[in-house]
Amino acid sequence: MSDKRFAVASEHSLMRVFTVPEAPDSTLSKIEAEISSNLAGFLNENIAAVEKPLHEIERDFESAQIPEEPMFVSAHAQDIMDKLVAHSVHTAAPSFIGHMTSALPHFVLPLSKLMVGLNQNLVKIETSKAFTPLERQVIGMLHHMAYDRKQGFYDKWMHSAKTSLGAFCSGGTVANITALWIARNRLLKPEGDFKGIGAQGLIAAMFHYGYKGLAVLVSERGHYSLGKSADLLGIGRDHFISIPTDKDNKVDVEAMRKEAQALQAQGIKVMAIVGVAGTTETGNIDPLNEMADLAAEIDCHFHVDAAWGGATLLSQNARHLLAGIERADSITIDAHKQMYVPMGAGIVLFKDPTATDAIEHHAEYILRKGSKDLGSHTLEGSRPGMAMLVHACLRIIGRKGYEMLIDKSLDKARYFADLIKAEPDFELISEPELCLLTYRYVPEAIKARLKTADEQTKLDIYAALNRLSASMQKRQREAGRSFVSRTRLTPPEYDYQPTVVFRVVLANPLTSKEILQNILAEQRELALSDPMYKKYLAKYL
Amino acid sequence: MSDKRFAVASEHSLMRVFTVPEAPDSTLSKIEAEISSNLAGFLNENIAAVEKPLHEIERDFESAQIPEEPMFVSAHAQDIMDKLVAHSVHTAAPSFIGHMTSALPHFVLPLSKLMVGLNQNLVKIETSKAFTPLERQVIGMLHHMAYDRKQGFYDKWMHSAKTSLGAFCSGGTVANITALWIARNRLLKPEGDFKGIGAQGLIAAMFHYGYKGLAVLVSERGHYSLGKSADLLGIGRDHFISIPTDKDNKVDVEAMRKEAQALQAQGIKVMAIVGVAGTTETGNIDPLNEMADLAAEIDCHFHVDAAWGGATLLSQNARHLLAGIERADSITIDAHKQMYVPMGAGIVLFKDPTATDAIEHHAEYILRKGSKDLGSHTLEGSRPGMAMLVHACLRIIGRKGYEMLIDKSLDKARYFADLIKAEPDFELISEPELCLLTYRYVPEAIKARLKTADEQTKLDIYAALNRLSASMQKRQREAGRSFVSRTRLTPPEYDYQPTVVFRVVLANPLTSKEILQNILAEQRELALSDPMYKKYLAKYL
Repeated sequence: MSDKRFAVASEHSLMRVFTVPEAPDSTLSKIEAEISSNLAGFLNENIAAVEKPLHEIERDFESAQIPEEPMFVSAHAQDIMDKLVAHSVHTAAPSFIGHMTSALPHFVLPLSKLMVGLNQNLVKIETSKAFTPLERQVIGMLHHMAYDRKQGFYDKWMHSAKTSLGAFCSGGTVANITALWIARNRLLKPEGDFKGIGAQGLIAAMFHYGYKGLAVLVSERGHYSLGKSADLLGIGRDHFISIPTDKDNKVDVEAMRKEAQALQAQGIKVMAIVGVAGTTETGNIDPLNEMADLAAEIDCHFHVDAAWGGATLLSQNARHLLAGIERADSITIDAHKQMYVPMGAGIVLFKDPTATDAIEHHAEYILRKGSKDLGSHTLEGSRPGMAMLVHACLRIIGRKGYEMLIDKSLDKARYFADLIKAEPDFELISEPELCLLTYRYVPEAIKARLKTADEQTKLDIYAALNRLSASMQKRQREAGRSFVSRTRLTPPEYDYQPTVVFRVVLANPLTSKEILQNILAEQRELALSDPMYKKYLAKYL
Repeated sequence: MSDKRFAVASEHSLMRVFTVPEAPDSTLSKIEAEISSNLAGFLNENIAAVEKPLHEIERDFESAQIPEEPMFVSAHAQDIMDKLVAHSVHTAAPSFIGHMTSALPHFVLPLSKLMVGLNQNLVKIETSKAFTPLERQVIGMLHHMAYDRKQGFYDKWMHSAKTSLGAFCSGGTVANITALWIARNRLLKPEGDFKGIGAQGLIAAMFHYGYKGLAVLVSERGHYSLGKSADLLGIGRDHFISIPTDKDNKVDVEAMRKEAQALQAQGIKVMAIVGVAGTTETGNIDPLNEMADLAAEIDCHFHVDAAWGGATLLSQNARHLLAGIERADSITIDAHKQMYVPMGAGIVLFKDPTATDAIEHHAEYILRKGSKDLGSHTLEGSRPGMAMLVHACLRIIGRKGYEMLIDKSLDKARYFADLIKAEPDFELISEPELCLLTYRYVPEAIKARLKTADEQTKLDIYAALNRLSASMQKRQREAGRSFVSRTRLTPPEYDYQPTVVFRVVLANPLTSKEILQNILAEQRELALSDPMYKKYLAKYL
């Protein structure tokens, strides 16, 4: 095709691409029907993933050249169904129990299309209109879920131009960063001639307040995004102090208190302590009330990272597990985890409606003072209307629906824990408090051997078990029938040595007891055929 | 309904909500068809928004109580069509020329549904598989667009487990923060006993390197997210130095040089200079080559914020406007702006493939060393597969298609500028360099009066014109036929006084010349009927 013909053909087709397809029998409607059917087919497959080595998949994505010529939508759609969808991870599969991504309620799909089509930008009213009050309501609802203030409080603050009860963001990481940013800026606030850290920076703030440094204290099970926040905010990862947990993976508050006192004695100000409500690896909840007491004692910000566990507040039967969360100055919750919203919906809530003043910012063309633009209190700028999907889930599932989902997940986790304990060649490493647990495969004979082994033999067996667990997890993923994840803990029963364990998250409503039984059976088979078993473990049998 | 009946009915319906709807005549399919038709109806309306005062809309979103009982999907869908969609902003309307949100190519809608349905999490391979190589390819393609390295470079780095040529994120703000974070950490890197700012924090870094402070220099037209970055990173907004622009809104590099020298003389290290490639308010591009020279001279990071203008590189006819961008250490580009991708697709690119080492992080359960998990080099954690939509646009529109879109936008902006200049009662304030321009309404008699007025009268007229412009913009938005935005500049022709102007962005391919003519006609009518006109301006006529 000559360049001229290309240009003519394509100017016409380019305009068409931006015009609304009216006819239900248009080409795009047909492609959409095909994509939907392909998606339904994929989601109906009962496997975690079709296995193809990554380096082979990479071959389909190796050119760095943007294609010169346009491509037909149908050809592109076919291509990605073959090369992308077929080699995606079936995160919604009932046997995919390794990560915090689960099945979605299907009504979110048409609503997502609506959200994308409306293409609102929540940074400002001028590009979002009704979406802004909707987002403020969703934040208000979650604030109410956590802090349970009276409606009068929400009448006053929820739609106030002056402030925000929280901030929507892309995920828990940005939520945690925002919370610690606010904690830092409220601590090092303007005073006298000092204009505050936001204006003058960390060095001037340290001089003004006479601190030698700042620190943040958190359980050793805290999420890695907290360390990232400490780096970003200029505090430094070394001042992000990891406090040991006791055997149930809850932070030792007494150890935290001693550390805080030691730091303050050195002139280092504890800027915040962070409670974890649902550790990523084991799903345990820190003693939030004791931590709130400590925060009051040492006068610091108390943040709770409830990215995973926050949704538990929706169950009247389980919310007691998070007792004390209402005393937190800020709370992170991920709607894309146990609230079954698609990826990209994090929220940070603030107890005090004026908290966001500490990071308020304005511009000339938007976010003018007195506007209700959400962007004046968020870390991010332009943002999609994801709040619409949280709103839909809260209304369509309802509080009671969520209660049922949460309660069932907890039951399922207890069932799986019992199942593991009943098997002589498995070992439960962490009991489920929420719907997460960790375990590993340990042959009976090895268990017996460990009881009498000398120190060196023990350590050798530990190393062999770690190799076996890591290899099993990888081979199970590659086989593609099911998926568990793995992590490394330091449990007392393994003399606090690094211990590779399987980690499961049982939030998918479609995961049945039978699937859990099958997963153990599959793992037993994988263990016995594992090269690491023969190479390292067999000699101790 | 008794609680017991609720529970039974709802356990069944809850499970159904998570099961794939197979039948094309299922209730959900019917609701989807209705939503699609409602969306198409909304997108076909030729107005910017249906007007209803915000405080009235807020009444529909005032309860902070999460509904107890579940709601039918159909009832929810009807409800949001009435209360949310009807009061959304029609950002895709051809007469909505006020912000950087434009019409979308319609093929992104079915693809978005696919993306949401697959619900991949790009933080790690285990929840994204083929999406990870796809995202790395898209980053590679944009890197190639900007830096034009040979394919061998991309063969080596694009899919490397060690690094990343850039980072996908939710938008330009996170992209800018990431770039400056990396600039800060590379400057204050580990050296001898010092473990680097990431580990030891800003105070220790200042002591080690002997700096009294850090500074970032940028044009007074720089985006507000850069000031937010300076706050977040602990540098302080006061050390985020605003450099004047000359009359074409490009930064005065000589003034920047002098400021940099003065700062260095005080012991303050210039950490980065930031070039703007497409200022948010006027669309101008800083002299990037001169800035690259300056960065080399003072040995600092050179970041280019091309959130808006980056897509211009896709046009062979226009890319010369960004000459020098290939010398930048990092570049921000928003695909959800001139690349016509839905909201939520920012990218930061790095010239040096090892740049992201400075913010690398790991965890036990994911992001293990040697993995190809994208999350070890991003500010965000869990992220959706938005790269899929950028990939689709790059292929379906193609480089030549983008070239046509970009070139047409530039032509349209020049056409509108000429139109404004030809009208005696309008005034062009900033000439379009990209497809943005600013202007205002100034009656001929006022223009004449200003030529002879004394200083005080001049200032009074300026104030009256500002009131009029602000009021006109608000009333035009409320009338809902069209939308321009407004900002405040300090143009020389108004003696560098704060001047309220209309700001337009002409990127919507569907905006016709006729629409532009109508907008001026509408504004003239609005001006003459404006209460501010009578109250403040009429007396000078």
